[in-house]
Amino acid sequence: MSQYQAPVDDISFNLFDVWQLDQYWQQQPQLQELIEADTAKAILEEAAKICEQQLAPYSQIADAVGAQLADGKVSLPEHYYTAYQSLSEGGWTGLSGDAEFGGMGMPKSLSMMVDEMLCSADIAFSLYPGLTAGACVTLLQHADEQMKACYLPKLYSGEWSGTMCLTEAHAGSDLGIMRTTAKPDTDGSYLISGSKIFITAGEHDLTSNIIHLVLAKLPDAPAGSRGISLFLVPKFIVTENCDLAERNAVNVGSIEHKMGINGSATCVLNFDGARGYLIGEPHRGLACMFTMMNYERLSMGSQGLGAAERAYQNALAYAKDRLQGRTGKTDPNKADAILGHADVRRMLLNIKAMNEAGRTFATWVANLLDRAKYDGCAQSAQRANLLTPITKAFMTDRGLDACITAQQVFGGHGYVKEWGMEQLVRDVRIAQIYEGTNGIQAADFMLRKVASDQAAVLLALLNDIQLELKAHPTSISVVVEKRITQLIDVSHSLLAQEQNVLSMNACDYLDAVGYVLYAYMWQRNLMALNPAKHSADFVAAKTQTAMWYTQKVLPKVDGLFSSLQSDGSAMFALTEDQF
Amino acid sequence: MSQYQAPVDDISFNLFDVWQLDQYWQQQPQLQELIEADTAKAILEEAAKICEQQLAPYSQIADAVGAQLADGKVSLPEHYYTAYQSLSEGGWTGLSGDAEFGGMGMPKSLSMMVDEMLCSADIAFSLYPGLTAGACVTLLQHADEQMKACYLPKLYSGEWSGTMCLTEAHAGSDLGIMRTTAKPDTDGSYLISGSKIFITAGEHDLTSNIIHLVLAKLPDAPAGSRGISLFLVPKFIVTENCDLAERNAVNVGSIEHKMGINGSATCVLNFDGARGYLIGEPHRGLACMFTMMNYERLSMGSQGLGAAERAYQNALAYAKDRLQGRTGKTDPNKADAILGHADVRRMLLNIKAMNEAGRTFATWVANLLDRAKYDGCAQSAQRANLLTPITKAFMTDRGLDACITAQQVFGGHGYVKEWGMEQLVRDVRIAQIYEGTNGIQAADFMLRKVASDQAAVLLALLNDIQLELKAHPTSISVVVEKRITQLIDVSHSLLAQEQNVLSMNACDYLDAVGYVLYAYMWQRNLMALNPAKHSADFVAAKTQTAMWYTQKVLPKVDGLFSSLQSDGSAMFALTEDQF
Repeated sequence: MSQYQAPVDDISFNLFDVWQLDQYWQQQPQLQELIEADTAKAILEEAAKICEQQLAPYSQIADAVGAQLADGKVSLPEHYYTAYQSLSEGGWTGLSGDAEFGGMGMPKSLSMMVDEMLCSADIAFSLYPGLTAGACVTLLQHADEQMKACYLPKLYSGEWSGTMCLTEAHAGSDLGIMRTTAKPDTDGSYLISGSKIFITAGEHDLTSNIIHLVLAKLPDAPAGSRGISLFLVPKFIVTENCDLAERNAVNVGSIEHKMGINGSATCVLNFDGARGYLIGEPHRGLACMFTMMNYERLSMGSQGLGAAERAYQNALAYAKDRLQGRTGKTDPNKADAILGHADVRRMLLNIKAMNEAGRTFATWVANLLDRAKYDGCAQSAQRANLLTPITKAFMTDRGLDACITAQQVFGGHGYVKEWGMEQLVRDVRIAQIYEGTNGIQAADFMLRKVASDQAAVLLALLNDIQLELKAHPTSISVVVEKRITQLIDVSHSLLAQEQNVLSMNACDYLDAVGYVLYAYMWQRNLMALNPAKHSADFVAAKTQTAMWYTQKVLPKVDGLFSSLQSDGSAMFALTEDQF
Repeated sequence: MSQYQAPVDDISFNLFDVWQLDQYWQQQPQLQELIEADTAKAILEEAAKICEQQLAPYSQIADAVGAQLADGKVSLPEHYYTAYQSLSEGGWTGLSGDAEFGGMGMPKSLSMMVDEMLCSADIAFSLYPGLTAGACVTLLQHADEQMKACYLPKLYSGEWSGTMCLTEAHAGSDLGIMRTTAKPDTDGSYLISGSKIFITAGEHDLTSNIIHLVLAKLPDAPAGSRGISLFLVPKFIVTENCDLAERNAVNVGSIEHKMGINGSATCVLNFDGARGYLIGEPHRGLACMFTMMNYERLSMGSQGLGAAERAYQNALAYAKDRLQGRTGKTDPNKADAILGHADVRRMLLNIKAMNEAGRTFATWVANLLDRAKYDGCAQSAQRANLLTPITKAFMTDRGLDACITAQQVFGGHGYVKEWGMEQLVRDVRIAQIYEGTNGIQAADFMLRKVASDQAAVLLALLNDIQLELKAHPTSISVVVEKRITQLIDVSHSLLAQEQNVLSMNACDYLDAVGYVLYAYMWQRNLMALNPAKHSADFVAAKTQTAMWYTQKVLPKVDGLFSSLQSDGSAMFALTEDQF
């Protein structure tokens, strides 16, 4: 049976010691009366309760029961309804929502920590509030005042939920070739027709209405991705007074049978002249949708980390409990806990070192977004933009690694359903795929975020880190500094190459940057340790885990650097028939 | 829908061109009249037919239906019965069986290729004949003549099947603490009592009898693993005339619900004073069982490769078919096949480079076993022994990598059940766990196979490869030579360390050796190319894939080498409470 205890201590350490966000919050006029360290801790502890008590203990049931379609209606695992009610009643569905429209107005750095807990408890469940929050960000940024005033309060309160409808059967990563159409009606609204697939939370009865954000093409649309517009298509039409009216012509065609996240209803949605309302400018829908996509891409990072954290907790508990083999340390005639075996320690330490660095990374990126939002800080916005594909791809790739490794700690017991470890692997696997595959993320990172400005944003960041390493030496700063210098060299040599070569190397390059930045995260962890404030065990654990990261994990970048600097001409020499 | 076409051409290339085994077979008195190149090809093509037509098209059904327990009986997916019948009737179940007892007497190098095909077609199904073959190897080596004469013909013919019963709920990797007992009866047989878990093919009705090889302790057994004996426990008692008599007291308690290989009945078996017969000497059972374990560990390699081969075929077909995005090479207004995208090519090439090297590796190890058996060649036996944990662990780890990567090529379609890609991931995952986890394999490799003789066997092998590289230069030999030299250096520096440090580094070390030996496999592939015999496409594909391996895959060992040479003292500094 898979257990979970929210890591509130490590989250607090990251928020208040590593990044000192309580101080930052107090400096912001929009935040200073809303939140301080104690409020934040109380919020985290309340969220932890819902995750630990109402979701995590039943996640295996959610997996077994799944979302079920019958007579055009989707039903969900029973406890989803009560847990969702708790979330709504507690204001969690509007945690980071704009206060003007009824949201709690909390910073992303806090809501991202709650996201991690929700994902640890049940990734499938987390998607219902997660997609809603993403839809709200899009509406807040791109919808007109009337639309915001009507829809946002109902979405923040959890009364309604949201979706994003992009993919069609023939159009996934390539949205430009989509076929869904929007026909202008006389009243200024549009009639949407087409079929969308892989729509998360596309149909269910958790909420009384579902607000679909749908990409479609207007009759005069230019070809390709510059001809896509964004529409709001409610499941039930909403009156001027914001009440529910008749059912709209959007229906679930089927739900997918998937590897995991079975509690999430992944729908085929058919729009048969469904009434929709334009959001933003015509033909500019993809840019609007990217507001939501970028938001969701950060949430994917939380999925990777959340699953990895739960996997670690379970594997550690098992490793302390399972007696197998003799380590020679205790009674030679009795088996010892497998945590005593070097290989089991190695597996657990690898996960721990990645998870804790990942949490620091997530807090960092979330705070960069906050700084962009509250201070209008352009540099923070650029850096958040740079780090978004790393958050999505690196954190989910490492999330799968962690779940597979933790499953391995269980031996055969990891392969049977009983212990819940195989579910973590199945559930987290999707995070590498949706919201833009990790290959797409890598291409985005390499080409748009790095090559497009000759790595100016990245190099400025690395330069700042170098200065920080010099100013605040720790036991690992010399090693981290060395790796950053190497990364800069590798980046320069890559940037001299053609686009094809950059594309070929994009995934390895993103990984290399990820590993080096995680080393910087460990530097930040060490900088934040305070023996007067933190227990001796906490300080020792952080210090030794940081050391392990630089000793045994970080050296793996030598392989990535070597590969990145090696010619890959063979790829282009192969014809299609030679594959 | 997942498809499969057996790679008979590449298998033949490995058998006859790379390793020239037809010539070797012709030199062996026991083989020369049994098999030549044409016979072998005919055998492969017939096996391919069964795999392609009777198993592969229905593997998704097998996954959905699974093995089912009702009223103490286990039923299997319907097509398993007909496919098993085809296997039995064709003599496949006794392919590598001893001719004296009705086997076909074929070399391991051939049967291992058939194993790969079976695993591509359906890993779960492959376990039924696979476990039987393993049981036969054990009986042939350790049973007395009477037992062999009675049991082997029925097992080779497929009329009966076999199992290995090791694990107990509290005793997995640590067999020494097992509790199953064997009480001597007056007639020289034993009464076996205890409960075994995770027993593959433990109960089913594919065959009229099931022959369990069971580890248990005699009353006077010394403590630990030196007190374990091996017993043959038939489901139905067998008379002196080798006919079936009464039902023995061994019953299935339950079957496991697993992540994958659902068609395989993974049973809890309860032995309630079941009649058993000692195999080999008392208290020497673990050594006997290792005969079977080593055999099965090689089969695990086939599971990794088999799943990876099918994953590659499916991903390649999808990448040629799926139109998404513009590569700029064709019509700028139309989407191109995703095979044109550098990142998709990278994923496919990585899989292809590993799979083909893996096939050469499997053929090599199988032939070393043949040489040990037919020539009594001690060096070959030592080398097969050395390479067995690599075959098991490296090939299954890379098998999972390949399946995950191939699934990624499908994007969202890889995550839904329809395409069969997620099943390959779920199915192949077990191969890293059972028959000794890959961590156990790495420890075996590092401590027993390398450190115990100060790497004498490994270094002699690497030295021979170095000579070969000089004698037969190819386009990659210089790179391979460089990596072998580095590996030798890293090995020496590791061997100077304490056992704890070796254990900590065992997995990375095994990986490093694996990657370097796969480079040697590509050297062998290149050496075997003959433009007079092989098509221009075949030669170009092998040449460029070898190049890709050395350009982009092999450099990853720099990360392993760095990590292996880095101190890992942090691991031992952490107390249990600090994890």
